[in-house]
Amino acid sequence: MGSKLTTRNQDYSKWYNELVVNANLAENSAVRGCMVIKPYGYAIWEKMQAELDRMFKETGHENAYFPLFVPKSLFEAEEKNAEGFAKECAVVTHYRLKTDPENASKLIVDPEAKLEEELIVRPTSEAIIWSTYKGWVQSYRDLPILINQWANVVRWEMRTRLFLRTAEFLWQEGHTAHATKAEAIAEAEQMNNIYADFAENFMAIPVIKGTKSENERFAGALETYCIEALMQDGKALQAGTSHFLGQNFAKAFDVKFASKEGNLEYVWATSWGVSTRLMGALVMTHSDDQGLVLPPKLAPIQVVIVPIYKGEEQLAQISEVANEMVDKLKAEGVSVKYDDRDTQKPGWKFAQYELQGVPVRIAIGPKDLEKGSVELARRDTLTKEIVPQEEVVEKIKGLMIEIQENLYERARIFRDDHITEVDTFEEFKEVLKSKGGFISAHWDGTSESELKIKDKTKATIRVIPLDGKKENGACILTGNPSTQRVLFAKAY
Amino acid sequence: MGSKLTTRNQDYSKWYNELVVNANLAENSAVRGCMVIKPYGYAIWEKMQAELDRMFKETGHENAYFPLFVPKSLFEAEEKNAEGFAKECAVVTHYRLKTDPENASKLIVDPEAKLEEELIVRPTSEAIIWSTYKGWVQSYRDLPILINQWANVVRWEMRTRLFLRTAEFLWQEGHTAHATKAEAIAEAEQMNNIYADFAENFMAIPVIKGTKSENERFAGALETYCIEALMQDGKALQAGTSHFLGQNFAKAFDVKFASKEGNLEYVWATSWGVSTRLMGALVMTHSDDQGLVLPPKLAPIQVVIVPIYKGEEQLAQISEVANEMVDKLKAEGVSVKYDDRDTQKPGWKFAQYELQGVPVRIAIGPKDLEKGSVELARRDTLTKEIVPQEEVVEKIKGLMIEIQENLYERARIFRDDHITEVDTFEEFKEVLKSKGGFISAHWDGTSESELKIKDKTKATIRVIPLDGKKENGACILTGNPSTQRVLFAKAY
Repeated sequence: MGSKLTTRNQDYSKWYNELVVNANLAENSAVRGCMVIKPYGYAIWEKMQAELDRMFKETGHENAYFPLFVPKSLFEAEEKNAEGFAKECAVVTHYRLKTDPENASKLIVDPEAKLEEELIVRPTSEAIIWSTYKGWVQSYRDLPILINQWANVVRWEMRTRLFLRTAEFLWQEGHTAHATKAEAIAEAEQMNNIYADFAENFMAIPVIKGTKSENERFAGALETYCIEALMQDGKALQAGTSHFLGQNFAKAFDVKFASKEGNLEYVWATSWGVSTRLMGALVMTHSDDQGLVLPPKLAPIQVVIVPIYKGEEQLAQISEVANEMVDKLKAEGVSVKYDDRDTQKPGWKFAQYELQGVPVRIAIGPKDLEKGSVELARRDTLTKEIVPQEEVVEKIKGLMIEIQENLYERARIFRDDHITEVDTFEEFKEVLKSKGGFISAHWDGTSESELKIKDKTKATIRVIPLDGKKENGACILTGNPSTQRVLFAKAY
Repeated sequence: MGSKLTTRNQDYSKWYNELVVNANLAENSAVRGCMVIKPYGYAIWEKMQAELDRMFKETGHENAYFPLFVPKSLFEAEEKNAEGFAKECAVVTHYRLKTDPENASKLIVDPEAKLEEELIVRPTSEAIIWSTYKGWVQSYRDLPILINQWANVVRWEMRTRLFLRTAEFLWQEGHTAHATKAEAIAEAEQMNNIYADFAENFMAIPVIKGTKSENERFAGALETYCIEALMQDGKALQAGTSHFLGQNFAKAFDVKFASKEGNLEYVWATSWGVSTRLMGALVMTHSDDQGLVLPPKLAPIQVVIVPIYKGEEQLAQISEVANEMVDKLKAEGVSVKYDDRDTQKPGWKFAQYELQGVPVRIAIGPKDLEKGSVELARRDTLTKEIVPQEEVVEKIKGLMIEIQENLYERARIFRDDHITEVDTFEEFKEVLKSKGGFISAHWDGTSESELKIKDKTKATIRVIPLDGKKENGACILTGNPSTQRVLFAKAY
């Protein structure tokens, strides 16, 4: 502690990295591109997992586990998917090490232990899962299959950033199999809605629901639904995706079922996922120059109580008040920590919990004992107030809701202020440069135009909003007709 | 369904494999030695995880996540550990595939994307974790570090069996760092006790707590604590291990701390783990020729209700009774399923839930409607009785405890009946051949004798019991003096 963070204005990217490391969320490891998720960061991820897992199970999904490795011949079976991931695959080629004959304290790969077929470390699991589903599906009675997996995946990224883009990351991947196209589409939409619900009501991140353009679609999907969020630096972040895969994987792995009518048909598929990338979105949406700001629903510690005292006797008096408060708050389901360590001073603790985004801090000093009060500080607004001790529990209960709502509302206002409608390419470039954010513009629907815009500006179509109103217009690049605005942005 | 399992007497090993597959626990995958854990099996594993995770957290541990890959130079740093795992390592050597120039629909490993340093897929994480801890520890204030990780690991086993021995498996691995030797030993013992508590009180598996002989110790440990269980075929199964690692890893990765007295000292370490192997132990301890038998505390479905009816009207009447029962049982925290599917007959359902080990089955037919009763069947004893409907909830609450205890007691009696004291090597061989189980015998404490006994009989020292009484005796092999009996067995 002590050293301040780089401010967002000075260098947003540096601010983010310093915050993630100093708030004890994660750090880079000895393995290129792979991170260590530290206990405090992992505790937030566990809260996310618990909530998502509950939502998945409530909608009929079950968890399972499939192998980490994909044999190359399975990996290449669905061509578009294989092509999409081939350039970023970690490949296992050998299964044994041996002592280096030239240096007995070193190990070398044993050339005699070469695999007959290379194994790909899964970048995503469609291939291994659909090769398994083949054995599970004979008739319509075996459908739907509604399975989710919590797992690690590896994509060999060249430029990595903690949580946002790492070679290994943690995620969940749902893989479902259906008898009809309509049912599969409904599933893909349902899961995208669940992601939006989670992002807005738990992470306090407003998102725009929609679909991806063909360029931005998942490799192997017919349609990719997504939720897009806006970060404080005006760049967009894809927070979750849900794919309608058509019959592509069923055809690649020959997964057919006998329908009620007795016909043999290919199965329809979806897949959907969110990852530890959400941690990056959480940090970048709410945090400030003092450090992390956490929505109460995802904060591992919602309230911290810090005693300010001189001598054992005073500490004992304060602890009596504090411990009673802890018991009452715990009974109300509030996660609270009383930090009476004597190895650190109150000022250090204040700074530490501010940096780590604890939503409410309560300080109790000698004057508070006299007056029967406490000092209560909100992390989101950085405001303080004096509260009578007997009102603390009710106050905290209210604040848990108020802070959650305030964070969402603050982010929503920022996001809404950064959706700019433009009608010309000049305007587009100007807004992108001066203001950033989402740019709402007409587009002629072709990949060609999107790629040209990307080449010229680095902005891409983040989302074709599902609730976008139909209006006639002209593509900002080509002038060709368009019937709906789409949202462009630079993106993480 | 329909086809019966091979019986245990016919072929124990075949019985086990058929059971695991047919009860929908797991199956082999397209990847050599890797399994697919199916939803029903995974649901049991999730219950185990939840309980263990609670126990770890109650004793002050936090979860975190470390990289899947270990660079070879880190892997080889602790020599004994490296030597122990070198022969079963999956090695990543490349990070990209490319289109096969001779066949555009195939992919090959891109020779230009060879890694400068090979990456080992973690067989265990001491190396990567201790290289991380180096950055976390400066002073005694930074200790202890009490971290657990839920993860997948890979050990290239040549002969694999579902759950018991697979190339990839799921586990938790705790890795702690301490200022003193005594504290580290206490931690290793505490975690072994937690494993024993979990095995006995949740899995209903009696275990013997003790330490391993040097031969059987974890590679890199100074002492390995373990819990050993006995399977129905008389073979032992190591259910969990907890290692006192001394300062081996601290020295290998140069992790020192400034003590309160200002000295620079190496940190003391432990690691401890249980894996999806526990699923195999669970199956093999309790199950019978009809299929899986589950202790209520780990059963995803504790009670299933099956209606026996003709026609919609009768079903409606039965459903009214059943649904009320479901609500009342759920209110008591019992996990209950009402299976009113019309696609399967009652007989099929009975057999299926028997195979899947649901602890209690309730059947409700037209006669039960008349009499206000239900038929209640226990999976553990395969007994049935008629119970008045108004007594069902209390009955079930009692049965959940009774079945849990009965399973433990049954396994304990079997285990105790299969601990045989012998005083000569002839007797030893005879008991091993005719009866199996644990053989309690004197041993002279040398690796040499243990290895000779293993060569001659395939039995090894499974555990040196912690509560074994001291008595003077003579090693069954060499006749050299011994002060305590140890337990030998053939093992999984």
